[in-house]
Amino acid sequence: MRIDIEAYLDGLRFSVEPATAGLEEAMRYSLLAGGKRIRPVLALATAHAIGMQTEAVLPLAGALELIHTYSLIHDDLPAMDDDSLRRGRPTCHVRYGEAIAILAGDALYAEAIRLVLAEQRGDPARIIACLAELTAASGVQGMVGGQYIDVSGVVEEDGAELRRLHELKTGRLIGAAIECVLLLADEHTRSTTLPDFRAFATELGVLFQIVDDILDVTGTDVALGKPQGSDERHGKVTYVSRYGLEGARAMAAESHRNARAALDRAASGKALELAQITDFIATRTS
Amino acid sequence: MRIDIEAYLDGLRFSVEPATAGLEEAMRYSLLAGGKRIRPVLALATAHAIGMQTEAVLPLAGALELIHTYSLIHDDLPAMDDDSLRRGRPTCHVRYGEAIAILAGDALYAEAIRLVLAEQRGDPARIIACLAELTAASGVQGMVGGQYIDVSGVVEEDGAELRRLHELKTGRLIGAAIECVLLLADEHTRSTTLPDFRAFATELGVLFQIVDDILDVTGTDVALGKPQGSDERHGKVTYVSRYGLEGARAMAAESHRNARAALDRAASGKALELAQITDFIATRTS
Repeated sequence: MRIDIEAYLDGLRFSVEPATAGLEEAMRYSLLAGGKRIRPVLALATAHAIGMQTEAVLPLAGALELIHTYSLIHDDLPAMDDDSLRRGRPTCHVRYGEAIAILAGDALYAEAIRLVLAEQRGDPARIIACLAELTAASGVQGMVGGQYIDVSGVVEEDGAELRRLHELKTGRLIGAAIECVLLLADEHTRSTTLPDFRAFATELGVLFQIVDDILDVTGTDVALGKPQGSDERHGKVTYVSRYGLEGARAMAAESHRNARAALDRAASGKALELAQITDFIATRTS
Repeated sequence: MRIDIEAYLDGLRFSVEPATAGLEEAMRYSLLAGGKRIRPVLALATAHAIGMQTEAVLPLAGALELIHTYSLIHDDLPAMDDDSLRRGRPTCHVRYGEAIAILAGDALYAEAIRLVLAEQRGDPARIIACLAELTAASGVQGMVGGQYIDVSGVVEEDGAELRRLHELKTGRLIGAAIECVLLLADEHTRSTTLPDFRAFATELGVLFQIVDDILDVTGTDVALGKPQGSDERHGKVTYVSRYGLEGARAMAAESHRNARAALDRAASGKALELAQITDFIATRTS
């Protein structure tokens, strides 16, 4: 699935005139830096689990990665996390300057929504439902809201607030990768599977974040493609700082079991790819 | 019309939990700072010109102002134009800090698209066409692309490039305020009036920018709500720096005549409000 996604992302063009070619270059620099592509892979695997073809959801899958890339570019800015390395390369603002990095992020979001509007096939009413989920997951009640909570430092040593922060910051878009596909599906498939897939998506988002926090402590710079230990340097409350390394590992194991159980309810044996991705997210080293 | 728009914008809420209330506050600080509301007023006036009611396009009108506000917040950032005053008040980053200003802009865009998806009534296929125009007007081939050309300084002393910069940076969204309404209208109205309305919108965008450049030289800080002469300080190529004040005034007068002529072709006498807005844009002092 990743090869389909890489080819699709590589084929995307945003600029139609020389004057904006430099903006497209900055967008593609960050977009094609070789991330794990977890969100688009989840979208494709969800499609396969309910009998849809790869081609039927590629624009949505691409949009998910454009949105994720935009969030990384803005999160890395000096005013935010001030990170200089991402996916093993200089961050967008280090390479192109802050102004262009801000605009590259802005543009990636606009072009993500536009990609779905222009390329995604399906009943118009279903596409609107899909986009409503995608924009909710990336707005105040999603990704941007979560990043706000993160940078504003309102989370103290409170486990519930920490979980909520990550539900918004990463969980909602990971959830949208799954839910948006179901929103494009036929009425019967959607109504019978949506609640269980939602439970799976929520648990997967939590699992993703716990493992992310663990890797920030135990990973190496080379494997992560960014400096290890950056959460601690930024004074962030994480699952590790809150529950200790062993506590976080136990929570990850429980979250992994919960996610697999929810997946079994959602797709009972027909979702091998999603099961594999769940295991990958639980055991990944970068 | 402005009173309808102010009431609608004032009624918008973005945050549903205490943790993100501060983000909503920053969004509303910039959104409700009392701009001229030219884009939503244009949308409402266009709707009236083709027989649609105010209520039928308020979500779209609101979205246009959210997008415009987001672009102002990001354009004012230290890495961009580094402006500290906007609409007579400290800019968003001066008031709330850079990180929150970046996120407030990001969030306003997501919530703008979501507003149309959630609230705009109409045939789903027409809403998709409307949103496709809105996102095109605000992406690489529109507002963000124009801002990129502006900050990257690729425009030298070339009149055609200058006009193109402003077509993208401000013209496309001003055009979208008119075109998006037509895209929501019935097939007959749309097909018979779209080309003439497009010509009107293009000319109106040019007129707006020429007058903006003139006011940057002739206006006062108090009337403008921002420091006068900021274009010259930033070394920007403007209609005034390129053609002189008298040359720019002659171009504005010609553009005003062209816009009124195009409007007469589009709506032959049935668009009094749009004619008034055109005259206001040509003669405004702030």
